[in-house]
Amino acid sequence: MSRIKARVLKGFRDYMPENMLPKQKMLNLVANTFESFGFSPLQTPALEYAECLLGKYGDEGDKLLYRFLDNGERDVAMRYDLTVPLARVMGMNTQLTRPFKRYQIAPVWRAEKPGRGRFREFMQCDVDIIGAPDLMADAECILVGCSVLKNLGIDEFVIRINNRKLLTAMLSKYDIESPEDTLGVLRCIDKLPKIGEENVRKLLMSEHSLPASSVDGIFEFLDLEPNQLHAWFSGHELGLLGADELNELLKLLEELGVSDYVDVDLSIARGLDYYTGTIYETFLKADESLGSVMSGGRYDTLLSMFSGQEIPAVGISLGVDRLLYGLIEMGLLEAQASPSDALIGVFSSDERKLSYTVAEKLRLNGLNAEVYPGVARMKKQLQYANRQGIPFVILVGQSEFDRDEVILKNMKTGDQDHIKIDHLADHLQGG
Amino acid sequence: MSRIKARVLKGFRDYMPENMLPKQKMLNLVANTFESFGFSPLQTPALEYAECLLGKYGDEGDKLLYRFLDNGERDVAMRYDLTVPLARVMGMNTQLTRPFKRYQIAPVWRAEKPGRGRFREFMQCDVDIIGAPDLMADAECILVGCSVLKNLGIDEFVIRINNRKLLTAMLSKYDIESPEDTLGVLRCIDKLPKIGEENVRKLLMSEHSLPASSVDGIFEFLDLEPNQLHAWFSGHELGLLGADELNELLKLLEELGVSDYVDVDLSIARGLDYYTGTIYETFLKADESLGSVMSGGRYDTLLSMFSGQEIPAVGISLGVDRLLYGLIEMGLLEAQASPSDALIGVFSSDERKLSYTVAEKLRLNGLNAEVYPGVARMKKQLQYANRQGIPFVILVGQSEFDRDEVILKNMKTGDQDHIKIDHLADHLQGG
Repeated sequence: MSRIKARVLKGFRDYMPENMLPKQKMLNLVANTFESFGFSPLQTPALEYAECLLGKYGDEGDKLLYRFLDNGERDVAMRYDLTVPLARVMGMNTQLTRPFKRYQIAPVWRAEKPGRGRFREFMQCDVDIIGAPDLMADAECILVGCSVLKNLGIDEFVIRINNRKLLTAMLSKYDIESPEDTLGVLRCIDKLPKIGEENVRKLLMSEHSLPASSVDGIFEFLDLEPNQLHAWFSGHELGLLGADELNELLKLLEELGVSDYVDVDLSIARGLDYYTGTIYETFLKADESLGSVMSGGRYDTLLSMFSGQEIPAVGISLGVDRLLYGLIEMGLLEAQASPSDALIGVFSSDERKLSYTVAEKLRLNGLNAEVYPGVARMKKQLQYANRQGIPFVILVGQSEFDRDEVILKNMKTGDQDHIKIDHLADHLQGG
Repeated sequence: MSRIKARVLKGFRDYMPENMLPKQKMLNLVANTFESFGFSPLQTPALEYAECLLGKYGDEGDKLLYRFLDNGERDVAMRYDLTVPLARVMGMNTQLTRPFKRYQIAPVWRAEKPGRGRFREFMQCDVDIIGAPDLMADAECILVGCSVLKNLGIDEFVIRINNRKLLTAMLSKYDIESPEDTLGVLRCIDKLPKIGEENVRKLLMSEHSLPASSVDGIFEFLDLEPNQLHAWFSGHELGLLGADELNELLKLLEELGVSDYVDVDLSIARGLDYYTGTIYETFLKADESLGSVMSGGRYDTLLSMFSGQEIPAVGISLGVDRLLYGLIEMGLLEAQASPSDALIGVFSSDERKLSYTVAEKLRLNGLNAEVYPGVARMKKQLQYANRQGIPFVILVGQSEFDRDEVILKNMKTGDQDHIKIDHLADHLQGG
């Protein structure tokens, strides 16, 4: 076998243990939170028929598909997101009990130009309720989102909420009604936090040729309070419906006790064209520049693509990588090379059995304990624990064992003590 | 958007919630067991440069790669297993502290002819110790394997152990020395449990043109006890080394207290050519016909493909799908459509807040509780719980809530009781 250069594809990455350990801790907690609300896991394949994915993400999206002919000349592609595969599943399983509440945490692939924080393979983490038209489902998704963040130890965040009906109705008041114009103007408004009011005004007038009066109207709308929406949309059916939905959702979120985390922000537009009602984005107060770490909304028409019938749907999607970055930044999760709470050193072949016995005792107490897999100089074993960031090393020879003791070395402080074996687990859990 | 037929590629499958819930439960337990022994998770990309994968799995394997040119005309392929990507990682990260103990649970892709239980996308679950030449590492992998099975509730299994050096030495005694002949004969011996001694004898003589005396010798070897190996291999260096390794490993497994799960079986050959020492396969006593659910061994030369230097390596690989199947067969895991312990019904918009309050209380007690996401007829809500297999429905109106009570309906028995809210979690956990 000739030697080959070991390299990873551009835009792809290995997650080495020090990043994978906190990531997995985070994802387990996220999954447990989802399940505590009754969401079930679903798993779909990495590969789909290309025709299932094409045309769903616009021309730009189609270009970003990893698409090829397989050995059977089938036109296939790697999934671009988890929403279209969900739509396919709903189309194939019309017998599914509704509401269908599923979550999926899985990688997706996009042949994008890689850049800072932008990869060609990344994890998506979606929760959706399918088949529930009631705003209780919208509220439930937001509640799940709040619970995830709180369970991760984050208490300072804001969910900016809006309703797509309000935006569509507002734009139609200024005769912006074609899907292209609507999307163009919404994307422009979406830039508000990044480029500021003056620049958005200029863009709207230059790129979208809006008269100054329309632009004034748009900014008047953006400043409205929820309770002013009814008056502003007086006589405009879609606007009134959006105002009802937003106010009813706020009432529900109040009942759920999460009002403090929610802010109405009429400029939240979400770049995608399939939202039909509630929309939201979530920012960490510690670092708003991270961008939205959790976003979503209601999309009552998207799922019709396979089933032919409209199916109400509402969901929330976590920005796993951003969230992981934020958690590590805030010190709520630590990079960690080893899961071990302790390394049990090995003195000699004759005494290794004692090390195994002690390790097993710790594991039965819920601790992670590894035995050094060989008989090496103690210096080498300590060096290993040190490099791996394992906080404690336990040494046990026959004489210690005969006294029901071990030697416990704290790798941070360098302290070394004799400890009774029966007290060891408590000691490690406490210290 | 025109309507497209919803379909999944041949050889691929969706894991619907009822199968995904037990699968995830199993995988979480497996991962936790791995970590309790100090193994860290590693994640590698789904796509690799094709040159990294080609030539590693033989001609047959190369043909099974999902291989294509990406948008940048790079020759890429989806990973075929988790071992070659691990070798690539070791080649790229020569600074990694050794022993490097990693596990990876992830899908792999093979464009195989799909058949009963054979899919084109399936999960692999590997644990390896890299950089530890000591037999303690071999023993450790077997111990981890035993712990995984025992933690899954399986106590009746047998790990059939052998050593590749013994097989190679035995064959060389009969002048079977070229890699092709060696592999051919080993694959033939591997068929012993399936086709029986007579047929293996015939195959060895016809296909491999072995004289009857050699075939007799092979079967004499297969019947040896571990303590007879030294005498049998007298004067044959590799054979003696293999005998030493096997006997030392047995001693270690005795020290580890797992001897009862281990049987020496000199016919275990493992079809792959890269094993260099210990090899093993594991069978569930409840259903040996499932095939090996856990196998592996030592492969001290494979990792040199990228690094150019030999790196000792030993590992164990779980047959996730077989194991899941076995666990469900044995009643140790149940298919389950919903993770919810209880559904909290909703009487009316005015009372839904009460339902949320009760659900939150249950979640704080570690239970999974969902609120029906809408105000629907109670019959419909009960039907939903029934279809989802949710064991309890809780009903709470203002009058119940004012008495700190709820109505608890056991969906299996149909019993309905009034229960104090404070006793609810205990009641559900107990019942």
